[in-house]
Amino acid sequence: MRGVVMPAPGDVRVVDREDPKIIEPTDAIIRLSATCVCGSDMWPYRGIEPVHGSAPMGHEYVGIVEEVGSAVSTIKPGQFVIGSFFASDNTCEICQAGYQSSCIHRELMGTIGTQAEVARVPLADGTLVATPDQPPAELIPSFLASSDVLGTGWFGAVAAEAGPGKTVAVVGDGAVGLLAVLAARQLGAERIIAMSRHEPRQKLALEFGATDIVEERGDEGVARIKELTSGLGAHSVIEAVGTQESMMQAIRSTRPGGHVGYVGVAHDVELPGEEMFFSHVHLHGGPAPVRRFLPQLVDLIWNREIDPGKVFDLTLPLEEVAEGYRAMDERRAIKPLLLP
Amino acid sequence: MRGVVMPAPGDVRVVDREDPKIIEPTDAIIRLSATCVCGSDMWPYRGIEPVHGSAPMGHEYVGIVEEVGSAVSTIKPGQFVIGSFFASDNTCEICQAGYQSSCIHRELMGTIGTQAEVARVPLADGTLVATPDQPPAELIPSFLASSDVLGTGWFGAVAAEAGPGKTVAVVGDGAVGLLAVLAARQLGAERIIAMSRHEPRQKLALEFGATDIVEERGDEGVARIKELTSGLGAHSVIEAVGTQESMMQAIRSTRPGGHVGYVGVAHDVELPGEEMFFSHVHLHGGPAPVRRFLPQLVDLIWNREIDPGKVFDLTLPLEEVAEGYRAMDERRAIKPLLLP
Repeated sequence: MRGVVMPAPGDVRVVDREDPKIIEPTDAIIRLSATCVCGSDMWPYRGIEPVHGSAPMGHEYVGIVEEVGSAVSTIKPGQFVIGSFFASDNTCEICQAGYQSSCIHRELMGTIGTQAEVARVPLADGTLVATPDQPPAELIPSFLASSDVLGTGWFGAVAAEAGPGKTVAVVGDGAVGLLAVLAARQLGAERIIAMSRHEPRQKLALEFGATDIVEERGDEGVARIKELTSGLGAHSVIEAVGTQESMMQAIRSTRPGGHVGYVGVAHDVELPGEEMFFSHVHLHGGPAPVRRFLPQLVDLIWNREIDPGKVFDLTLPLEEVAEGYRAMDERRAIKPLLLP
Repeated sequence: MRGVVMPAPGDVRVVDREDPKIIEPTDAIIRLSATCVCGSDMWPYRGIEPVHGSAPMGHEYVGIVEEVGSAVSTIKPGQFVIGSFFASDNTCEICQAGYQSSCIHRELMGTIGTQAEVARVPLADGTLVATPDQPPAELIPSFLASSDVLGTGWFGAVAAEAGPGKTVAVVGDGAVGLLAVLAARQLGAERIIAMSRHEPRQKLALEFGATDIVEERGDEGVARIKELTSGLGAHSVIEAVGTQESMMQAIRSTRPGGHVGYVGVAHDVELPGEEMFFSHVHLHGGPAPVRRFLPQLVDLIWNREIDPGKVFDLTLPLEEVAEGYRAMDERRAIKPLLLP
């Protein structure tokens, strides 16, 4: 089968890879209906994270089940399924507490590589959620978004305790940040401030439910959030970038007693203990336990209550993956969808 | 009046200070029934925090109201009152959310100095809580404890979400850590692991409700907590020290999705962003909003349901304050009570 690899930073290509096979009796094999490029793929692409050999790429996926292992009982061949970037058993104590991305048996889908025609999904019964029926083609981008960026933005909003009566600020205008806006709206937030200086992203943020746009960043961005919140800061701030500047912007934009939900993968971030202490914020985040939210997200999409697939503003055949990475790197695209 | 000052690290003495007077119409003047030395007084005493001139010392206090300003309406002369280390209006949006120690009008009692015979308390109506009647002498140490160390331990336990069904670990066996054990017990925690290698403190932890004692520290302490929790870590960890080692011990002892409540004043602490991200813990803490808990704590003490005053294992006249600091510094005393 054809699949994407990254031999070196800046170099992604489609190659012939071995066809995935059932290895464990809990595995499923799915044929991908769509896959995509993630903001986190930019870290190795830009050389900020090391590239290991010709690593297979991709961890977002939706598709049709082709085959299941002998121990798989709820997932069936022919089903349209969505999974997240960590395979999880969904039964251990950590999963049951809602932290499937820290499952004691978790496996990283990024190591398997889902920018491909076919993929093996470990722990299929725990990992995959099936739609009620075969979805119409126009819903596929939204289901694909739920695999990571929607689930991650949603976790950010939940971690930040976005909800009725709250003013929520979102740091980061990538797909995750934009979908955090959508999540905050769904969770009933009163006011949602999207921090973005890119006109097409501002537009999408407003479509997703943002009430205010702040273009300033860093200390100036913090000052603007304070101005908009009687000097106190937002109740809830979602951090969806992962740099030192964005983390401090998020923490400093939050009022005492407020909540920071951080879902940007932290790179070279050091949080100053004394400032954290006196900030009085709640801090929670990490790799989103997307599986916790998937059943609800699948319902919302199936019933056309949300349209997160709008973040895909570029669709390419899998063979043109290199252009997808370039467009994302140059911020010409919010998120490229790939059709295998 | 007589009051304690610290001209230099390691040097505390009682001197004649000017009698406090009403400055703002919202002030009260109280005559202290008891005061004490705090773990946080050890930071400047040990030269870890700078000493500013002959700074007055002390921020814990209980006493009888002598006089109130013209704008004070609920607090009356003659009442026995308890306040916390931040004066707060208890009406601003931050106070109403339960973060009185970040009140927009807060004033630091440590600047005023309550290791003294008499003290001025700003924002008296917001800051002070009166007992139902004059308390018997034997309850005074417990009321004094509620002024800071009990309220701080309690906040740590609340921030760590200690409660029914939870395994709680406490890092730090000073008065705050010991009273965090008491708080976790009151909040209904199932299992409470006190981390201490000092026999008298272990004994008090067990009296306050600890179910297990762990003597190991650092990585070994973390490993012991994991052993006691099926390899997962505690649900709730209270950090009551404030060093890099104790913070990392607390974070690493917490299971994914668990809660760290940190109330040790952070000194030279840097939290590694990537480790925090993948730890999946909730982090919350800071200067305890003791005022939030005071009415409940006063009730519990008044009704003799808790006896937090047991942390005072040394009682001295105010004039012998230097011995109190020495005993605390050398860990000969858990917490010295001073009688003006």
